[in-house]
Amino acid sequence: MKPSSSPSDGGLFDGVLAAGPVRVEVSDAAWLRALLDAEAALARAQARVGLVEAADADAVVAACARLTVDPGDVGAQATGAGNPVVPLVARLRAALPPATAQAVHRGATSQDIMDSAAMLVAHRARVPLLADLSAAADRAAALAATHRHTPVAGRTLLQQALPTTFGLVAAGWLTGLDAARRRLAAVPLAGQLGGGAGTLAAFGDAGLDLLAAYCAELGLVEPVVPWHTERGRVADLAGALGATAGALAKVARDVVLYAQTEVGEVAEAGPGGGSSTLPHKRNPIRAVSAAACAAQAPGLVATLLAAMPQEHQRAAGGWHAEWRPLRALIESTGSAAHWLRASLDALEVDAARMRANLDLTGGDLLAERVSAALRPVLGAGAAHEVVRSASGNLAGDPRITAHLSPGELVRLLDPATYLGSAGELIDRALRAAGR
Amino acid sequence: MKPSSSPSDGGLFDGVLAAGPVRVEVSDAAWLRALLDAEAALARAQARVGLVEAADADAVVAACARLTVDPGDVGAQATGAGNPVVPLVARLRAALPPATAQAVHRGATSQDIMDSAAMLVAHRARVPLLADLSAAADRAAALAATHRHTPVAGRTLLQQALPTTFGLVAAGWLTGLDAARRRLAAVPLAGQLGGGAGTLAAFGDAGLDLLAAYCAELGLVEPVVPWHTERGRVADLAGALGATAGALAKVARDVVLYAQTEVGEVAEAGPGGGSSTLPHKRNPIRAVSAAACAAQAPGLVATLLAAMPQEHQRAAGGWHAEWRPLRALIESTGSAAHWLRASLDALEVDAARMRANLDLTGGDLLAERVSAALRPVLGAGAAHEVVRSASGNLAGDPRITAHLSPGELVRLLDPATYLGSAGELIDRALRAAGR
Amino acid sequence: MKPSSSPSDGGLFDGVLAAGPVRVEVSDAAWLRALLDAEAALARAQARVGLVEAADADAVVAACARLTVDPGDVGAQATGAGNPVVPLVARLRAALPPATAQAVHRGATSQDIMDSAAMLVAHRARVPLLADLSAAADRAAALAATHRHTPVAGRTLLQQALPTTFGLVAAGWLTGLDAARRRLAAVPLAGQLGGGAGTLAAFGDAGLDLLAAYCAELGLVEPVVPWHTERGRVADLAGALGATAGALAKVARDVVLYAQTEVGEVAEAGPGGGSSTLPHKRNPIRAVSAAACAAQAPGLVATLLAAMPQEHQRAAGGWHAEWRPLRALIESTGSAAHWLRASLDALEVDAARMRANLDLTGGDLLAERVSAALRPVLGAGAAHEVVRSASGNLAGDPRITAHLSPGELVRLLDPATYLGSAGELIDRALRAAGR
Amino acid sequence: MKPSSSPSDGGLFDGVLAAGPVRVEVSDAAWLRALLDAEAALARAQARVGLVEAADADAVVAACARLTVDPGDVGAQATGAGNPVVPLVARLRAALPPATAQAVHRGATSQDIMDSAAMLVAHRARVPLLADLSAAADRAAALAATHRHTPVAGRTLLQQALPTTFGLVAAGWLTGLDAARRRLAAVPLAGQLGGGAGTLAAFGDAGLDLLAAYCAELGLVEPVVPWHTERGRVADLAGALGATAGALAKVARDVVLYAQTEVGEVAEAGPGGGSSTLPHKRNPIRAVSAAACAAQAPGLVATLLAAMPQEHQRAAGGWHAEWRPLRALIESTGSAAHWLRASLDALEVDAARMRANLDLTGGDLLAERVSAALRPVLGAGAAHEVVRSASGNLAGDPRITAHLSPGELVRLLDPATYLGSAGELIDRALRAAGR
Repeated sequence: MKPSSSPSDGGLFDGVLAAGPVRVEVSDAAWLRALLDAEAALARAQARVGLVEAADADAVVAACARLTVDPGDVGAQATGAGNPVVPLVARLRAALPPATAQAVHRGATSQDIMDSAAMLVAHRARVPLLADLSAAADRAAALAATHRHTPVAGRTLLQQALPTTFGLVAAGWLTGLDAARRRLAAVPLAGQLGGGAGTLAAFGDAGLDLLAAYCAELGLVEPVVPWHTERGRVADLAGALGATAGALAKVARDVVLYAQTEVGEVAEAGPGGGSSTLPHKRNPIRAVSAAACAAQAPGLVATLLAAMPQEHQRAAGGWHAEWRPLRALIESTGSAAHWLRASLDALEVDAARMRANLDLTGGDLLAERVSAALRPVLGAGAAHEVVRSASGNLAGDPRITAHLSPGELVRLLDPATYLGSAGELIDRALRAAGR
Repeated sequence: MKPSSSPSDGGLFDGVLAAGPVRVEVSDAAWLRALLDAEAALARAQARVGLVEAADADAVVAACARLTVDPGDVGAQATGAGNPVVPLVARLRAALPPATAQAVHRGATSQDIMDSAAMLVAHRARVPLLADLSAAADRAAALAATHRHTPVAGRTLLQQALPTTFGLVAAGWLTGLDAARRRLAAVPLAGQLGGGAGTLAAFGDAGLDLLAAYCAELGLVEPVVPWHTERGRVADLAGALGATAGALAKVARDVVLYAQTEVGEVAEAGPGGGSSTLPHKRNPIRAVSAAACAAQAPGLVATLLAAMPQEHQRAAGGWHAEWRPLRALIESTGSAAHWLRASLDALEVDAARMRANLDLTGGDLLAERVSAALRPVLGAGAAHEVVRSASGNLAGDPRITAHLSPGELVRLLDPATYLGSAGELIDRALRAAGR
Repeated sequence: MKPSSSPSDGGLFDGVLAAGPVRVEVSDAAWLRALLDAEAALARAQARVGLVEAADADAVVAACARLTVDPGDVGAQATGAGNPVVPLVARLRAALPPATAQAVHRGATSQDIMDSAAMLVAHRARVPLLADLSAAADRAAALAATHRHTPVAGRTLLQQALPTTFGLVAAGWLTGLDAARRRLAAVPLAGQLGGGAGTLAAFGDAGLDLLAAYCAELGLVEPVVPWHTERGRVADLAGALGATAGALAKVARDVVLYAQTEVGEVAEAGPGGGSSTLPHKRNPIRAVSAAACAAQAPGLVATLLAAMPQEHQRAAGGWHAEWRPLRALIESTGSAAHWLRASLDALEVDAARMRANLDLTGGDLLAERVSAALRPVLGAGAAHEVVRSASGNLAGDPRITAHLSPGELVRLLDPATYLGSAGELIDRALRAAGR
Repeated sequence: MKPSSSPSDGGLFDGVLAAGPVRVEVSDAAWLRALLDAEAALARAQARVGLVEAADADAVVAACARLTVDPGDVGAQATGAGNPVVPLVARLRAALPPATAQAVHRGATSQDIMDSAAMLVAHRARVPLLADLSAAADRAAALAATHRHTPVAGRTLLQQALPTTFGLVAAGWLTGLDAARRRLAAVPLAGQLGGGAGTLAAFGDAGLDLLAAYCAELGLVEPVVPWHTERGRVADLAGALGATAGALAKVARDVVLYAQTEVGEVAEAGPGGGSSTLPHKRNPIRAVSAAACAAQAPGLVATLLAAMPQEHQRAAGGWHAEWRPLRALIESTGSAAHWLRASLDALEVDAARMRANLDLTGGDLLAERVSAALRPVLGAGAAHEVVRSASGNLAGDPRITAHLSPGELVRLLDPATYLGSAGELIDRALRAAGR
């Protein structure tokens, strides 16, 4: 298939919102390729089970391979039929001698081809999406290993709370990204074949053999029964994509917060992030873009879930309603993964600034520890109260120095010695993610 | 501006999901036109308030008019900067002598231009959207008038309940469509200008005058203050579009239900709705397509609302997150309006079938009325119980015929005489919608 | 724990929107129980790893068991702290001698307890939810087996299209419900423990042992690392619940459509569905209620996904934002499952009406088959055209009877002999669902 | 009406997620009161138009006033009928002599009462919601006026960009809050009356007069036609609430960001925000809670919009699906308003810290201004490049000092003199908001 428009053509917002390799895999050209691949697989499978002559199937396969189609033309003709398969089949048939043309789309319904193509598109787009996700996870793993001993303020409600390590922060990112990758990779993508009412009636006794052969040709999972209006498979995919987008957005938000002028603990190195008016700014534009892409997901997942109650054997709108949000969800999530990978690739970590920020609060981050040390002497309530009211001056408050020696206090107030199991948790995260 | 790709190019799903004239108005080409119009308006306005030489402004305006831009190229270059304004401005400047080039985008921030363009796009796309909505409402009004006296089963929970008229049904459609139209037409669309921090600092003392002149040039509302991160205006537009989609979807669902094989009270006339395997079917494909388009809206509105908490003076992702859902929401709602207009234009009403369906239940639809007639004799409870247990045989049950004469029963069981204020309600609806 | 309000207390809408046993499992009382169970598990686990004296742990466990708490009081006190754990811990401590009180909540952060309780609540509520889902699937399986040979119109876009069997329809329901059940049952629910910054610092060297012991006590999965702000686990649960709701809604919508007055192929038997004004109506109120409950899910899933980007070590709002939608999602999905089970339990199938409806269109449902039989004689195009124009009179049109004998036509127009692999597909569905 | 459970009873999460006075106004008790008020209004209106004896109407009104109902009991009984009106009417009738009982709910359908009650609830809950919103806006206005001359870093993508004033920041908040308030206050809330099929048939010729009288009794807008399945009114309300939540969330997010340990420009004073483990923390818990409440809105709005396509004269699920999200949306938005008001009431502004933060970047915030000053000498490109590469040292870079005198540089680098129209914009915002 040679689509007349180049698959590399992007749109005005695509540089930001459809970055990376996934866009091409969900483009009109990719959809057309998948639709024609589904028709070719159907012809081949029918030949395998004896419903179509091998020579006819070969002719159909060849026609599918050489057909040149303009997506806009097919799309415009889809208006009448309600889907692009009808005009596409007409073109395929027109490209073949009448006798052979009968072997095109034989016994299938439009949704058989559209759903199979949708799953093929998802299958193909998932490859680069998982690759970007994996690469982002690799980078998080590297950060986790490198910064195993880099103290950083643990922040709760955006307030400094207790020390942690940047390695553990990155291990948390890794855990989220790797779980998202595994979840998404595990979603089964099935072929679709049932004919008009889902009984495979047009295929006589050969329906089930054909179903198996067709799915094998497509490289997709064979479903137990046709799923024209049982959309759990689409919901599975949507849920996995939505969770992936959320995992990406979490990391992106952290990067943006760490990169704030007043925090300055990380920065995205290199070009990008320029401003049209502010020459000095170094915006974390990759993380910002990742966040913007990921923000598309929740609403799109909701649209796909809301489309699930599909009527009888073919929905009166719910099925058509899936096409755009499914594409947009794959594309946006892919773009978010691509941007986050780029952000983490470019990430510069400023360990000295992390340490300096830890010192901003005069030891308050270790309040829990000082409180615990005072508890045996003062009791829990009094210890808590003393530490609370000495906030900002834990090293100097006489109610504290009266009970804890200077050396003891120095030790207690050193964040690098109050990191609990941070190191072992990093190791667990790396091991669990197979790194 | 001559975009290199034709604005009429559609995509593979656009014949179904982006039908009608709105698609072109939110296309990349339309966005580029709006972005350049915003730059031209800014130059003109700066000349009006004396910040830029008139000749320079004229040169900028001319450059905006003649610039040929490929949306994909600009989009690809937007990757670095995070938005397409930066590369577009670079091209505009490159098309002008250095001295004049300084008058391009002078003092503005990218979001000033993007937001203004978004509102221009919405403003322009709203025109055909409102026209399709209006035409659909016209058709509903005509149906309401024509079928003022056409009895049809009133159905609750998809069960026949009480008689109504098809005119009143259509009057309800009209009311919903007309309210949506008025709501959407009333959304104020404002220009945006503030510069990097929203203070208009780059414009010295002329900021406020410039703001007024710029909005006047754009034909957009002048905002009280810059709204870079105060997105109530976007939410307003989103809410009105979402409510419009819902109003359209209500009518579409009714049409699909009335058109069912077993109901058969309406049909979409003419071509369309063909099936790839079922030659005889006459699918209500226009209403189905309208429903599919309208189903995009709730999730897109949610995405836009969720993007509202935008940080400080420029959001770290929330703003970028608006571009695609806003476009998709306008486009989908426009397509839904176009499809519904087509559906109602093609609607054939089968009054005889409506009447036949009313007779399916042996008078049960008038049970409320018979019950009321028996109440004075039997008391409320007994009347209710007699009528309930006589279901399907109200005209023949001896417990009823004992109290009501045959003539009285015929009158009571005639749906055409139990229509309450249906006629007056139709008149009210027509009047309220100015028809 | 003895909550002062009875767990059986429901709300005004709960009879419709929170029906069945799940509501109680996500009630305030259930949450309080889970919170106290988490505190008890923490104390026990600390004793196991030697951080707390066994006697103190026992005292804490006993206090958790006997504490009487009013949810509203704790909730009101949560205002200051931002979560109900703080006031609950204060009450627990107040119920113990000062020395023992220190063993309460030792080293934990509020979110450790809240998240663990949330997962406990989900774990407990999942049991009856899966049971209702299973029972609904059982009933679908029984319908599939019983109606293996019951022809019914296959409907696409709500138009009769081709024959299928009601058994295959029910097999499709079964497949969706069973897939939803397996998906939901497989979601891993993990305990949460990390302390203020997720390092387990307050537990010295015993952090990891404690984490394992704590999760074992809770009967929950042990996470690799704390997941305070890595919410993929919540997204997983949300996605599975959303997909479950969709699977339920699909069946509910079919039931409502089959039950229409004009279709009449199924009815919900027994009481219910009464109308306040229409004594005769037999509304499919169970299916309607299931649909209403399931309709809550997409928006709630979106809210949970949108809450995923949680900042640093504790979110500034995103975590709190999960509590209500997670509860509502479990409750609504549980209610939908309960209603659908009830609907299918009450379902009366009218095979005769199914057959009568198949005859409404004068053989049109077999058009595909007649077309195929004419194709060898007339060629594909002419065969399609003849059949299309003979719609409604396939048995009598001379262009057809000229080529097909009366006997042949009777056979071709018998829906019961054009069911393809419907029977085998039912068998596959029953087998795959382990029935 | 005396509901047996106290209207002040809250739930476990309500202290955080349903704070303030709105919760009580949407409670079960408030709904019951509204349902009974609607029945009372209906009786009174029927008396006014002569359909019911005045004495009977008085008896009904009195019964409505004195009926004691447990919401859970009514809710449980709603299971059979599908809504709580049916059992409520049964109780009302049981509380009256048979003859008078007939005057209860005469000719109405359950949805007439439920929808009217929903609008009454919204009408009553809107009062305190608008009050909290107004108070928050007042506080924003006061901050705008007080900090007219307080420079603060304007931040874009969370990076310091250009100076602005905290007054202008607060003026932006005011603008958003005030627009939300006006939008929400303007939503028309209508009564509902139509009877089973929306024709007012049960009221004979008096239907329209009754409709007018009923709405007047309720203090609600009179609709043109019944809107049982035309849900634009609900969508309007939902849209206004969603936009309000977004406006609140924007301010909340800003407060949380300004309150960060490393930024420290604002703090929420007074009690609250304590941590169970970290005695020193002063969490901006009010703003965090506001954000959590507001985050509920987008998904709930989507649910309400998705429920709009309601079938025929009474939806098969879509209507029931509105009850909970509408309540939750009002409650959450009300809670967000209450929290934000509290946050702004408690807000301490640290102008010195704002100034110190402005100095963090060595003049980079004025880069645009220095660049503009160098442009006449160096040309735009070279000026931009010099300033970019001198980042962090604008006052000392010899390429700059060669062209700008020390005095000139001091002036250029003073943020307080590069605030453009900030002051006038504040005045505009105050004026537009009537302050």
